[in-house]
Order: sequence, then C-alpha cells, then structure tokens
Amino acid sequence: MKSSTETLEDISVPEAQACILDRIAPLDAEEVKLAQALGRALAEEVRANRDLPPYDVSAMDGYAVRAADLIEIPRTLQIIEDIKAGDTPRHPLQPGQCARIMTGAPLPPGADTIVRVEDTHALENDQVEFPVPIKPATDVRLRGENMRRGDVVLQPSDEITPGTIGVLATVKQAVVKVVRKPRVAILSNGDELEALDDPLDPHKIPDSNSHALMAQVQALGIEPVLLGIARDKPDELTDFLRRGLEYDVLLISGGTSVGVHDHVRPTLTALGVAIHFWRVKMRPGHPVAFGTLGRTLVFCLPGNPVSSMVCFEQLVLPALRRLMGHRRLFRRTIPALLGQAVKSRQGRTEFIRATLSRDESGVYVVTPTASQSSGDVLSMTQADVLLVAPSELSELSTGKTVQVQIQETAVWQLSPDT
Amino acid sequence: MKSSTETLEDISVPEAQACILDRIAPLDAEEVKLAQALGRALAEEVRANRDLPPYDVSAMDGYAVRAADLIEIPRTLQIIEDIKAGDTPRHPLQPGQCARIMTGAPLPPGADTIVRVEDTHALENDQVEFPVPIKPATDVRLRGENMRRGDVVLQPSDEITPGTIGVLATVKQAVVKVVRKPRVAILSNGDELEALDDPLDPHKIPDSNSHALMAQVQALGIEPVLLGIARDKPDELTDFLRRGLEYDVLLISGGTSVGVHDHVRPTLTALGVAIHFWRVKMRPGHPVAFGTLGRTLVFCLPGNPVSSMVCFEQLVLPALRRLMGHRRLFRRTIPALLGQAVKSRQGRTEFIRATLSRDESGVYVVTPTASQSSGDVLSMTQADVLLVAPSELSELSTGKTVQVQIQETAVWQLSPDT
Repeated sequence: MKSSTETLEDISVPEAQACILDRIAPLDAEEVKLAQALGRALAEEVRANRDLPPYDVSAMDGYAVRAADLIEIPRTLQIIEDIKAGDTPRHPLQPGQCARIMTGAPLPPGADTIVRVEDTHALENDQVEFPVPIKPATDVRLRGENMRRGDVVLQPSDEITPGTIGVLATVKQAVVKVVRKPRVAILSNGDELEALDDPLDPHKIPDSNSHALMAQVQALGIEPVLLGIARDKPDELTDFLRRGLEYDVLLISGGTSVGVHDHVRPTLTALGVAIHFWRVKMRPGHPVAFGTLGRTLVFCLPGNPVSSMVCFEQLVLPALRRLMGHRRLFRRTIPALLGQAVKSRQGRTEFIRATLSRDESGVYVVTPTASQSSGDVLSMTQADVLLVAPSELSELSTGKTVQVQIQETAVWQLSPDT
Repeated sequence: MKSSTETLEDISVPEAQACILDRIAPLDAEEVKLAQALGRALAEEVRANRDLPPYDVSAMDGYAVRAADLIEIPRTLQIIEDIKAGDTPRHPLQPGQCARIMTGAPLPPGADTIVRVEDTHALENDQVEFPVPIKPATDVRLRGENMRRGDVVLQPSDEITPGTIGVLATVKQAVVKVVRKPRVAILSNGDELEALDDPLDPHKIPDSNSHALMAQVQALGIEPVLLGIARDKPDELTDFLRRGLEYDVLLISGGTSVGVHDHVRPTLTALGVAIHFWRVKMRPGHPVAFGTLGRTLVFCLPGNPVSSMVCFEQLVLPALRRLMGHRRLFRRTIPALLGQAVKSRQGRTEFIRATLSRDESGVYVVTPTASQSSGDVLSMTQADVLLVAPSELSELSTGKTVQVQIQETAVWQLSPDT
C-alpha cells in the first residue's frame, strides 16, 4: 500500500479513486452466523463436505425403469415399490419391473432412467403402461453431479448473496468467516447548522448531510455513528476529531472550503493526519479532501448536500466496499441515450442527476432533472441515476450514448418486461 | 382486490404476477425513527417547514458585491465585513464596499452578486481588486430557491433513499410514517431434509432452501422467521402450517409436486386456504402454487434449490415489495447481446442463469453459466443476472438483444467507467 506525505491538488476522479484505494486493504475477519452473513465478503475458501446429490436421484415425479425394458414400446411394467425423497429403496429392479418415484428420491439398484408420470398410463393391479420412447439416463441426477466432497465451492472475497447462503447451508456452514465491517463515524461541522432535535431557528440551516451520509453508509450494510455537530471553535473541533479518528473511517461534512474560518484541515494536520489529496476535478464535489492517520481513513466532504452525496458515491463508497473485502467496488453503469443535450465544463467529470426511462422500442433514455443546484437535496430524490459526463468533453448532444450510474431506486423498475 | 375460489392451472408468468398483485394492497403504516427508515416506503406526504435557503446565500467562497459597482473593471472595493455561514450580516453594503463571504453565508443587504475568491486580487488595507467582468446575481442562491415552506416535498409511496433521508432531515422529520414490513415465515417440508444443526447423514439432503429464501427475504430488508422442517406426517404438517398462517406471508419450500405423498396442498385447503393458481409456465419453477387465507399470502415453492430461488424472484419478490408500499416492484432489466445461442422450450418463460460482461466497445454481453440444472445451487453463485427467454421463442441466436434481470452482485461492477 502507498504511503506518502505529499498532498496532491486538483486531481481527476480516477486519480482520486486510485489514491484512496491504493491505501486500503480489506479489514480482518470475524465469524458470523449464517443469518447475519448476507452482503458480506467471505474471508476463507469453503469446501463441499459431501457429494451432492448424495446418490443417483430422480429429477422428476414418475417411474424409475431399466431403459433396456423400454426398447420396444408400448410396454407394461409391474410397480414393485414406492420411493419418495428420504427413502432407501428396498428392492433392486428386475426385468419387467419399475418403481414409482418422487423428485429427489434415490433410484433403486438396477434402475437407470426416469419416465415422467405424464408420459405413462396407470393400469390396474400396480401395473403401468409406457407408450412413449425414452432415452436412457433421462431425468436422472447422478451422485456428485452438483458438488463432490472436498471440492472448493466458494472463494475468499466472494460476495455473500442468497445463492451463496444456499451453498453455505448445503455444506452445513452454520457459522462463516467474513471480512468485518468498518466502524464509520460521521461528524458535521459549522456554526450555521441546526441539529435534527433542535427547535426550528429561521436563521439556521438544518443539518441534513450527516443523516444523508448515515443512510448512504447504511445502504452498504454498515451502521455508522453520528458524532454530532462541531461548532467553529478550535478546541471543540479538536475534541470531536480526536474521537472520530478512533474509527476505521471518519466522514467530516462541511469545512472543506479555503476560507479563513476553516479550521478542519489545519486541525486534522495538527492531529497527525496526512492529507493525500485536496480538491478533485469533479462537479458537484470539487472541494473534497482525503487523508489517513495510521489505518484510519478521513474524508472531508463538501457542505453542499448534493456535493456531499456525490462525493460519497464516487470516493467513499468504493473505499468502504474494499474495506469490507469486496471485489466489485463501483456502482453498475448502464448505457443510455441522452434525451436532451448536456453542457459541462471541460476538464472535470460531471455527475448529473437524471432519470432513466425507456423509449417505445425499449431502449434506455436518460434525462437530467430540472435542478442541478448542488444545494438542492430535493433533486437527489427525483434522480434515480447519475449521468457521467466525461471530463474530456464539454458538450454531449441529444441521442448520444452515455453511461449512467444506477442509484438505489433504479435497482427496481415498474414493470417486469417478461 | 380480487377474490375468487377458482384455481388457475398452468398459467403464464405475467398471469401469475397479476393474479398475486391483484390480491395485495400495501400494509398499514407505522412510525419509525429516521435511522430506521432507509428502504421503506413513505406512508404520508411530507411538506417543507421552512424556506430553503432561509435567506439569499452565497454559493461560493468569495466576495459579496453590488453588481452596479463592477460595471467598469478593474475596480477596487473596500471590505467592510467578514460573513461566514451562520452569521447575521451587520452592515448594509454602500457603493464602493464589499464583504468577504463564505459558502452558505447570508448576503448582506445591498449585495446582489458573489465574486469567487479566485477571480479577485487581495490588496492591503482590507481592499480587494476585481479584474474580471461579472454577471449580476452570479453564485447567489435565492431564499426559497430549493423549497418553500408548505410545499409538498415527498409523496406517499416514495421509496426512502439516502436523498430522501436528507430531505426528511432538512424538514426536521425525526420520526417518519412508513408502510410496515410484512412478517414472513418460511417452512421447509420433507422427510429427506437434514437441518443445518443436524449431524451429517449421507442419506439425507441438506435443507438449503429455507436459508436461501431467508437471505432473499433479508435482501428486501425484512427479517423472516424460519419455522423449521415439517416431516411428511399429516398432523405435524397441520401444526406447522397453522402456525405459518399467522404471518402476513408464508413461504413453503418443497411439497409442490403431484405425487401421492404430497400432503401440502390438501392440508392447506383443509385449513381454509384458497389456492388461486397451481403451476406456472416457467423454467425453472414450474410446480409453484399461490393461495390466500384472509390477508395471509401462501406460496408453495418447488423443492429444487434453483427453482425455489427463481420462483421467489419472479413471484414472491414483487408481492413483498407491494406489501411494503413500493411502486417499483420488479428487478431492473438491462439489454445485453447474447454471447452464445440459447434454446428454450416454446410456451414457457425461461430464466437462464448467466453472467454479464462488456465487449471491447463497452456493450453488455450475457453468457449462460455452464450448469442450468435446477438442482445446482452452486450455479446461482456463479450467475449475476437472470437472462429472460420469452415464452413465444424457442431459440435465441448469438448476438440477439435480450433482457437480463440484475441480481445482487450485478448492482456493483469492477471498474468505475469514469
């Protein structure tokens, strides 16, 4: 991992992401129960503890037969047994015999093929007629077909999805070793801020950023701690920052400007934090800083609500996902046609709040929201994607294909398309 | 909402989805704290409780000026005050005067424009030179520009995202009325099943489905209750089902086949459950049933691990999201080119496990996983999307555009594309 004391200034988004990620390794491992494991990254490889299926089983409800008996059809066979899942067959099949069998039940010795119940005619006296030609081995799942004892079935860093939980339950891992979650602290900063529980003061600005950041962190499965609001008094700020630096990650909202009143950066430096970069060529979100103290990551995020959220998305989110041990660190992007022309300032990456829709032929179209003001937190509820306007272009014309980052609501859609 | 006692048989996926959703309304409301609200649906409209910004504020660090003073440039003005966020300006600006101002700070009376600090030259004696022409009203955020007191800012059924949390904190809703979550019970069923805590028995099949279903439910933000494994004894099954029917939703894994040993459907019927459909034209997942008792929804899911998960995705997931009050009920689909030809059986919708990648020009390509066996739970960890093969086609050729449903891992990607 990189370590350097130089502060980069006014760098590109990819440079900022690399600067951050180069300094992060996954956190240490912990053991959790299966019911707490969803969304975590595995910290160990997992092996199969048995063959699956454990024996040759039927894939259908029907009859277990000897294929050799059905070379000439129609043919009538004698049912000698009923086998359901969980049973142990008692009688080997002799020529002319078959067994009624359920999905998942073991084949009796001698049987090699399953005939589905809908391809048969039940007769009297436990006899059944087979009028349809059959291919040997049809609808049989062979022992060990899905996994063999000792096989590596899951790898370290695999993200634990519902499917992974299914596999872990299959190999009977009631407890699983995963990468632990980062402990995240959020600090707001500014004399103008009014806390959520304060009475309304028309001269103050409600502190929304720390709650929006809380939710962004929660969306990754991490429960952060809100430290509160530090006022613009050096001693108070020092105390707050000292407390925040005990966490794995400290997010500081506000106090990233260059003004004479800004004490955040000098106080961090005085506490020993190395500031690795300051300002990123992006909009919104230009005044953002990143530093470290030992293994603690510190992000100074802009005070504008939208800038704060967009900086979190581009810079903090991949950092938290790497700490959690994940391989996939970035939001899924979808190509979409631009529904209206977009102007941006060359030399910086713009993240434009936008909504995703489909045209009559089903192609994705993206349209910027009316307001792009970085103070307008409401616009973040109207957007379901962030349209990425690359730094090398200053204008994107209508109909051009752009990439959009899907936000929480865009993971879902109104109709199924099936 | 529909009510009927007829059982539909072998219906299409859209018919099954409509049959389910027509019988569901969002659950009742409850109040939760802001820290518990993420991912829920709002149960009430939310109005702004103040103007925002509460007064005209600076959007930048710089100087508050009278635009009339800068008609001819360069011009030097006298700094009469320092204003930071949270301050109340003390002196109206007179001609020839300006005020140093921070982002978010209120404009002093008389000021109408902000000049960014980087477009100025600081001189001695609290004087500053303005060498760049300026447009009036630049970088001023007007009072009420983002929201006005009394405006409806959020609507019922809005999904609570981090941006919504920011808005709720802005209007100081520390407690918010949301649609309550459904109480979900999961029951496994079958003599062959071995519970997670049971010792390994080579003749049994590990019960993975109830845990995979648990995780699928958890992924929607709901903590389900695992009732355990009902053995194939009518009395025991009746007891289990009676307990499960006390929940909002009962998911029954296994016991959907037509065999003589299957007691689930008759027992449900005996307990008063109306079965609305049985069998859906889909693969995997054909043997699936849906019923209701009063307001309780009952889903009988197939015993094959993959069939169970795919049925959950297509039928249970939208039902749970509607109960939670959401408008967007279905997984996002992305168009992708087919990397290899796919055969499917005409007359049913196939959901093919597949992986998403990009070709060298950035276009999405989808490739089926090697195993499509419905017993192969491992294949669900290898797939990040479900490729939808429409029921009206029997073959999809390489290069054709298909829709893929994104699963948990596909919400994320390896590189940022910025």
